[in-house]
Amino acid sequence: MTTDAGDTGQRRGRATRRRVMDAAVDCLAEYGWAGSTVTVVAERAGVSRGALQHHFPTREDLFTSAVEHVAEQQSAALRALVESAAPIVGPARRYLAVTELVDLYTGPLFRAALHLWVAAATEEPLRPRVVELEARIGREAHRMAVELLGANEKEPGVRETVQGLLDMARGLGLASLLTDDGARRRRVVEQWMAILDDVL
Amino acid sequence: MTTDAGDTGQRRGRATRRRVMDAAVDCLAEYGWAGSTVTVVAERAGVSRGALQHHFPTREDLFTSAVEHVAEQQSAALRALVESAAPIVGPARRYLAVTELVDLYTGPLFRAALHLWVAAATEEPLRPRVVELEARIGREAHRMAVELLGANEKEPGVRETVQGLLDMARGLGLASLLTDDGARRRRVVEQWMAILDDVL
Repeated sequence: MTTDAGDTGQRRGRATRRRVMDAAVDCLAEYGWAGSTVTVVAERAGVSRGALQHHFPTREDLFTSAVEHVAEQQSAALRALVESAAPIVGPARRYLAVTELVDLYTGPLFRAALHLWVAAATEEPLRPRVVELEARIGREAHRMAVELLGANEKEPGVRETVQGLLDMARGLGLASLLTDDGARRRRVVEQWMAILDDVL
Repeated sequence: MTTDAGDTGQRRGRATRRRVMDAAVDCLAEYGWAGSTVTVVAERAGVSRGALQHHFPTREDLFTSAVEHVAEQQSAALRALVESAAPIVGPARRYLAVTELVDLYTGPLFRAALHLWVAAATEEPLRPRVVELEARIGREAHRMAVELLGANEKEPGVRETVQGLLDMARGLGLASLLTDDGARRRRVVEQWMAILDDVL
């Protein structure tokens, strides 16, 4: 009985944590850094401000942890999607995978991350945390892109080719911050995938 | 005499305007949107707050005008640089031109624009102004990139290739917001220019 109660408590704890992380990312995406306070997130997630501060002592802790947590989840979801698309092969599969990857940069997570990155440029306590987080998320995105493209990084230039593609995905995400840029984005990705098919 | 005095006054007016525009862009780049007030810009440019508000009635007017003004100047400077490099031809010239173009996205102007774009995502009075400004600057950057690359947009795919390159430049700019990313950026640009030499 004690074990069962402990398990239930742990499960509930994980569910609450996930709700808090999602609320923090949505809040950042919607209101930006200036409008994202611990109080707003606590209300949105339906937890007390005290409980939230017990797990995340500072505002910086809360929002950097949230962006990292959601990034890990999305990366796992994308891997699963690509695995489930296994019957599709060659360029078609690569195009599907890269379209999904690029679309990640237009969703709430990228929007939240963008607000955090830009705030870190002028807010000293945030900067070192975000620099470290950006490096970690960047490495993971690179690893995933290499896998999705079936690229061989031992060949000269391939590493930089993949990096450039991810930089482009970030630029496309920036372009969709204020207006719906979906149609143009798809044409650009289609053209660059055709170029990549020749290179890789 | 009256005409001379008028000319001097106009010249002085233009010099002051330019000083104000530069101060506003530097201020945005350094302190972000939250820290960029009309008062801070007036002090930095050495003009009275009243004089500044006479020309730019709102904070939105001041900062969107400044980003547009500095963008026009940089675009003119880049054209001049490329013309002065006329003896260099072919891929070497193209590489020089694109390196200079990409470097624009890592300077104070891009940094200022980025703060303005991201603020516009959550600040209603700013949004329509920035959407219009972004479209105008984007069109000018595209025109310039086509010229620098010597690209023929009548050929299928060329327009999207150039757009993708500019999206990549914006993504590279974003990557250099918090850390010095210059060495990696040069390797990425070099690799993609080699790829583009085959495509264009």
